[in-house]
Amino acid sequence: MMMPNVDIAARVYNHRWKIDPIVRSLLDTDFYKLLMCQSVFRNKPDTNVTFQLINRTKSVPLAEIVDEVELREQLDQVRNLRLTRGESTWLRGNTFYGKRQMFRPDFMEWLENVQLPEYELSKKDGQYELRFEGKWPEVMLWEIPALAIIMELRSRAVTKDMGRFELQVLYARAMTRVWEKITELNKLPDLKIADFGTRRRHSYLWQDWCVQAMGEGLGHAPDGKFIGTSNCLIAMRRDLEAIGTNAHELPMVYAALADTDEELKQAPYRVLADWHEEHDGNLRIILPDTYGTKGFLEGAPDWLAGWTGIRVDSGDPVENTEIAIKWWKDRGEDPTQKLVIFSDGLDEKKIEELYNKFNGRVKVSFGWGTLLTNDFRGLVDGNGLDPLSLVCKAVEAEGRPTVKLSDNPAKAMGPADEIERYKRVFGVGEQERVEVFV
Amino acid sequence: MMMPNVDIAARVYNHRWKIDPIVRSLLDTDFYKLLMCQSVFRNKPDTNVTFQLINRTKSVPLAEIVDEVELREQLDQVRNLRLTRGESTWLRGNTFYGKRQMFRPDFMEWLENVQLPEYELSKKDGQYELRFEGKWPEVMLWEIPALAIIMELRSRAVTKDMGRFELQVLYARAMTRVWEKITELNKLPDLKIADFGTRRRHSYLWQDWCVQAMGEGLGHAPDGKFIGTSNCLIAMRRDLEAIGTNAHELPMVYAALADTDEELKQAPYRVLADWHEEHDGNLRIILPDTYGTKGFLEGAPDWLAGWTGIRVDSGDPVENTEIAIKWWKDRGEDPTQKLVIFSDGLDEKKIEELYNKFNGRVKVSFGWGTLLTNDFRGLVDGNGLDPLSLVCKAVEAEGRPTVKLSDNPAKAMGPADEIERYKRVFGVGEQERVEVFV
Repeated sequence: MMMPNVDIAARVYNHRWKIDPIVRSLLDTDFYKLLMCQSVFRNKPDTNVTFQLINRTKSVPLAEIVDEVELREQLDQVRNLRLTRGESTWLRGNTFYGKRQMFRPDFMEWLENVQLPEYELSKKDGQYELRFEGKWPEVMLWEIPALAIIMELRSRAVTKDMGRFELQVLYARAMTRVWEKITELNKLPDLKIADFGTRRRHSYLWQDWCVQAMGEGLGHAPDGKFIGTSNCLIAMRRDLEAIGTNAHELPMVYAALADTDEELKQAPYRVLADWHEEHDGNLRIILPDTYGTKGFLEGAPDWLAGWTGIRVDSGDPVENTEIAIKWWKDRGEDPTQKLVIFSDGLDEKKIEELYNKFNGRVKVSFGWGTLLTNDFRGLVDGNGLDPLSLVCKAVEAEGRPTVKLSDNPAKAMGPADEIERYKRVFGVGEQERVEVFV
Repeated sequence: MMMPNVDIAARVYNHRWKIDPIVRSLLDTDFYKLLMCQSVFRNKPDTNVTFQLINRTKSVPLAEIVDEVELREQLDQVRNLRLTRGESTWLRGNTFYGKRQMFRPDFMEWLENVQLPEYELSKKDGQYELRFEGKWPEVMLWEIPALAIIMELRSRAVTKDMGRFELQVLYARAMTRVWEKITELNKLPDLKIADFGTRRRHSYLWQDWCVQAMGEGLGHAPDGKFIGTSNCLIAMRRDLEAIGTNAHELPMVYAALADTDEELKQAPYRVLADWHEEHDGNLRIILPDTYGTKGFLEGAPDWLAGWTGIRVDSGDPVENTEIAIKWWKDRGEDPTQKLVIFSDGLDEKKIEELYNKFNGRVKVSFGWGTLLTNDFRGLVDGNGLDPLSLVCKAVEAEGRPTVKLSDNPAKAMGPADEIERYKRVFGVGEQERVEVFV
């Protein structure tokens, strides 16, 4: 008398896949990758770069947990993806940050035909070594899918022997936790917050759930507090704003390409000069910490103080925001009109603390990542589903190593001698070490 | 690229209903109703009885919460139900309690054509007055659907303005709670437990979920701890044992029909004499508390001590079990071979306590009801989804009021003078009052 609760067509469709693909679309990536890709495509299309996946959580031996065959299948499947017509139409026709035709025809034509380059995979000390080499605009597109694949394969491995109801209760608990965080955040009257959780998410479907829960629980901007998601695919499917600006890979590669110390010192500003040409308004967000926030702002040209705001992504966020406020004042800018986007290791308590500290003094906004889309801590025995500090970074450009200092030595990257050189060039002294959690 | 996650046929099917029916099958009832119905059909087919719904939780004004039009639609819809061919086949062909053809052909033929009789619905003091009058075998079938309808309409009323994700989190929390209870219970190595939660369930789908979670979490008997469900429809659909024996309505109606005090005193034993004719093994379970457990056992004929066990459904379960153990010993029976089924106001802590007290001294078993299938306490503001102490009882037989004393005066029913008469006839003295929660 009742109909079975099964969508036969959907099941048949899913059976067609040899594997259960984690990344099913080239749009299942962060919006800023596409913005940066267009910029690189215009300014540095032929630069050879190497990206590498690095698990900073050494205590989790990923190569023992995640099956290599499955990993290769998932990576191979991403190489089969092409931008679909509907996806291309969305990128071409949509308004991003209030701007039509954000993506230029020549870039779109290239993107419609792009295939992700090959990968090199090996194992060492219980970890995977996963590298991508090639032209920068192609290689950079690997970052998010590679991270999301490893994260989700790890989730699958940990949950694979759980029963159907045990699994349902696992997700019930995780949903309850996310909802409680959202309920707490909803008490902050002027909150503006976005999902930045693609790269280290528990799974695609889970991120999709979290994003929708944010929309219902916080309300959608402009009236509500939820301003959108960094994930292009979810933004397209759920009719949300795609959010994001730029990341460390731009100054890191520009810096590695510098031939002299003076060129090196100017590299981060050249990145933003190129960006200035291309974007305005809320896309003019400074990411100042690649080689130390303090030195970067002190040495910055005046036109940068006219930008809309900064993103605070490492170090002590309070200290760095105070530095930025002082900098704006020194340059004759009104900090209350400036936007500060916090995006480093956020959870609801830290968001509340930063909101209470800075709301009104500046315009605050939050890019909430891993602890939105992957907080399963304590929901299985041991630390089996705890989030990992997994990154996929540009490690070389034209054969030269890249360097990142950031405002936290725990996040520094690069050969020791190069780190010393960069510290000298950028005038970075002693830094406080902050444990990197996610 | 992805298929929509919608079963179109199921949605179209559901749209055909004018309402969203709560009870969609005559089998969506407790198994013991069918066993008793067959017994009544054989022994008292023409007895006129009245059943009435009573909300003992006066603080919840059901008539203000549940819409009368919706209630009438749901009740009318039950009157349209007929036993389907598949349902009849299951009842005729299945093995219940190890016995084939539990239901005789003449009863099945009657059941295949039965329609539930009319109802009388009115409002008084914020409560519904819902009465069913007619021949006992038909009227008695109203008990479980009437209760389940009121309970689920109340759940729907309380949740109707909740958002999609808010609702999902409500159920996520409830799932987590049920699973934690099951996990606790699974620590009891020799546990045997059944679902008795149909009548006061939160909803049909929720009961179905809880039953399946019990199966996975505790394992299925004989190897596991979950022995089945009282709900025939769920038993049929989920391939589980249907569980249940008999209830208070049998001695209550038999007692009301007695013409003299002597006949009255014998009425509860005559019920079980009729049952003895019909059933053996695990269906020979004494429900001794209708007019006081102690007096009932003291006055019981010797053949009753040979029955398989008793069901403890009111009063202090420890005290009543001790009374039963002493009674068995006095009658030369070995209590360790006797089954004690606890079914009154159980939750995991009480189950654990009773298990630890009696496992080994007797065979213990549990019929877990309302706090399995309807524990949403605290999950919405206020007591909006707290379970109700709602019952639907035989209140008259051939124009005479029925009386129930039980081992708890808070559960007593009937006119005051009749209660006094019954207390005198059955030698019931002072009783300890225990708050009735569910």
